[in-house]
Amino acid sequence: MMKTGKAEIICTGSELLEGKLNLYVPLFHERLAPLGFAIVREQSSGDSLESICDCIRCALKRAELVLVCGGLGPTFDDLTRQAAAKALGRRLGYSKTCAQILGINFGLKKLPPNFKDQCILLEGAKPLENANGTAFGQVITRGRKMLVLLPGPRKEWEPMFHDFLNAEISTFFKGLTPIRQLKLKLAGLWETQAEKLLRPVMRRFPRAAFTILAGPGTVDFILSGDDSGGMIGRAGAACRKALGAKLYGEGEDTLARAAGARLKARGETLAAAESCTGGLAAQLITDIPGSSAYFLGGAVAYANTAKMKILGVRAATLKGGGAVSAGCAREMAAGAKRVFGSDHAFSVTGIAGPGGGAGEKPAGLVYFGLAGPRGIRTFRRQFRGTRPFVRACAANFILDELRKVIK
Amino acid sequence: MMKTGKAEIICTGSELLEGKLNLYVPLFHERLAPLGFAIVREQSSGDSLESICDCIRCALKRAELVLVCGGLGPTFDDLTRQAAAKALGRRLGYSKTCAQILGINFGLKKLPPNFKDQCILLEGAKPLENANGTAFGQVITRGRKMLVLLPGPRKEWEPMFHDFLNAEISTFFKGLTPIRQLKLKLAGLWETQAEKLLRPVMRRFPRAAFTILAGPGTVDFILSGDDSGGMIGRAGAACRKALGAKLYGEGEDTLARAAGARLKARGETLAAAESCTGGLAAQLITDIPGSSAYFLGGAVAYANTAKMKILGVRAATLKGGGAVSAGCAREMAAGAKRVFGSDHAFSVTGIAGPGGGAGEKPAGLVYFGLAGPRGIRTFRRQFRGTRPFVRACAANFILDELRKVIK
Repeated sequence: MMKTGKAEIICTGSELLEGKLNLYVPLFHERLAPLGFAIVREQSSGDSLESICDCIRCALKRAELVLVCGGLGPTFDDLTRQAAAKALGRRLGYSKTCAQILGINFGLKKLPPNFKDQCILLEGAKPLENANGTAFGQVITRGRKMLVLLPGPRKEWEPMFHDFLNAEISTFFKGLTPIRQLKLKLAGLWETQAEKLLRPVMRRFPRAAFTILAGPGTVDFILSGDDSGGMIGRAGAACRKALGAKLYGEGEDTLARAAGARLKARGETLAAAESCTGGLAAQLITDIPGSSAYFLGGAVAYANTAKMKILGVRAATLKGGGAVSAGCAREMAAGAKRVFGSDHAFSVTGIAGPGGGAGEKPAGLVYFGLAGPRGIRTFRRQFRGTRPFVRACAANFILDELRKVIK
Repeated sequence: MMKTGKAEIICTGSELLEGKLNLYVPLFHERLAPLGFAIVREQSSGDSLESICDCIRCALKRAELVLVCGGLGPTFDDLTRQAAAKALGRRLGYSKTCAQILGINFGLKKLPPNFKDQCILLEGAKPLENANGTAFGQVITRGRKMLVLLPGPRKEWEPMFHDFLNAEISTFFKGLTPIRQLKLKLAGLWETQAEKLLRPVMRRFPRAAFTILAGPGTVDFILSGDDSGGMIGRAGAACRKALGAKLYGEGEDTLARAAGARLKARGETLAAAESCTGGLAAQLITDIPGSSAYFLGGAVAYANTAKMKILGVRAATLKGGGAVSAGCAREMAAGAKRVFGSDHAFSVTGIAGPGGGAGEKPAGLVYFGLAGPRGIRTFRRQFRGTRPFVRACAANFILDELRKVIK
């Protein structure tokens, strides 16, 4: 029998609403899922006492576990303690134990005022020691619910979570089932096609949760739920069967990693010839540590003269079909294979846009070449979207074809 | 007299609570500030009708403008329309106008069922046309408040915001004072150095808000506030003076754009030779539309044979100092300049890590070459961090040096 808990995250700090990315939610998810908690909502609040108090009050109504991150520092805009006290109707008090700990940790006989402020706890709170700062974490329980206050900097809350909070949560919330998550990585299909393929599996496993994330030419399909009876494993196996070659990996796999693993296993090498992707495909390949074992290099042949000089594309080809043509893609791939002396080589030449397209060759039109031990194939695709999207689609398309060709 | 509005953002999608970063809040902030709106809270909700409905209901109590992003697609987990209808107590209806627009845009005489689902609007909603997808945005007003539903993909909501929503918001909410924001882009210094340089300016303009965001070898410094009396402009001028050559641009400028603009103005050309950055620098350069005017191409010379064959690096250089050396960087830059026939060329060769470092050449050590009409310079830098961070620092470093050398 599955039992999971509901958690909510509250991130405080006006900077989160004024241009700074919130990087923490995925980190909290990673830590809470194995404890049996699903995050059901995240709120980011500015540094206002009323607003933080309201966030806490509402979250405690909905969730069993509420984590507040940030606003425990010693400056004027650190208001989380007061907000939590107000939300719970509890008093704040000075903790002599905390003062002693700070005194020992920082080698101080007498604490300066800003250190003293850090020793203020909510009535009934259990302090969590901070290995890298002065702010204590606080764990407050009420009935069957738990409110946790954590300092904002990752280097402060992360060890606190690992050293103390994991145990606090699993001791207080007994009998929760860990949530297992399986992320399947697909390519060469659209979101709706993926859904169509996978719908029968979703119907067969109604207790699992499914999420579809569309990328440029890729789709992530995430299954999650309790793994009692190996449910997630079985659902995953059913998905794999339904997906066939559309599945290129799992978890943090990328197309470049999948293609690279196959090259490495076969002891074969790769080179790249890029025009409109401008180095993106090579960058994705070399993002993978150890890619130097199979990737010899690439040419970003942006100008026609570079295509001719570096890759040996013939002037007649450029004059005839132009740089955006199957002929040019073929000669670019062949040239890269020859120049770098690799087993495989691919090429990408097209119009990334937004400008540059016209008539029969609109923006988004891309030709590809794939040269290998058994000859050269070319492909033609029309992508739609912004310049970065077209470029990403083009790079992913050829990496996917590459992966499929290296069995 | 300053008057600003309160906005709230609701981002839907279980993936945002299960591992995916929310990249949108800063983007909405950028767009709402000039319209006079400060974001006072952001909520991320899973794909649950009840939860999205609750988010909308609560947000409408607190804020004048509520934007909901995501959940307008045609799949099972797209529930925003229903949630909004429930929160407002309004019905959903099929819009023939929307159906006609989709028919025209996609050249269809008869709409398939998943297209028809996209034509469902809230009672009284004004549809916003989608230049890159099938989901319409919806603007719903009630009393003096506005609820906006936007599709999740950035390439869909971004043009929608620009083409229609800006005008909808500024027409409905009259008399708000724009919050002016000035984002200064700095390179070649750390966050703390930037803060030290800018602290006197921050003291002189106490009514402006300042945010410092650190990137890989770059720093964004954001000033914001109402611009009465030209306050932000004056603070910006003071910052520029304090920063000197550390400032490379503003707003959406990138180092590649700054360097590219200078090349274009001088009618000069560029080539690249990359090893450890593996195409990243070329990719950043070619991210800029129109970069083909000055960027001839690049060589990603990952293997030593590629460095020799494509760029003419001498075997003796690789045998002597190794591939990660000033000598190799010099010959790579010279080779790229010669092979591509460009006015300028740079090179990057180093150890991106995490593996590959040892003894005197630890992971993160990178050598650079910069060849121009007046000869070649080399640089040596030691970066610390993960593989992607080291690669990004290296690419940014050489683009910054390039920018500075092309006056």
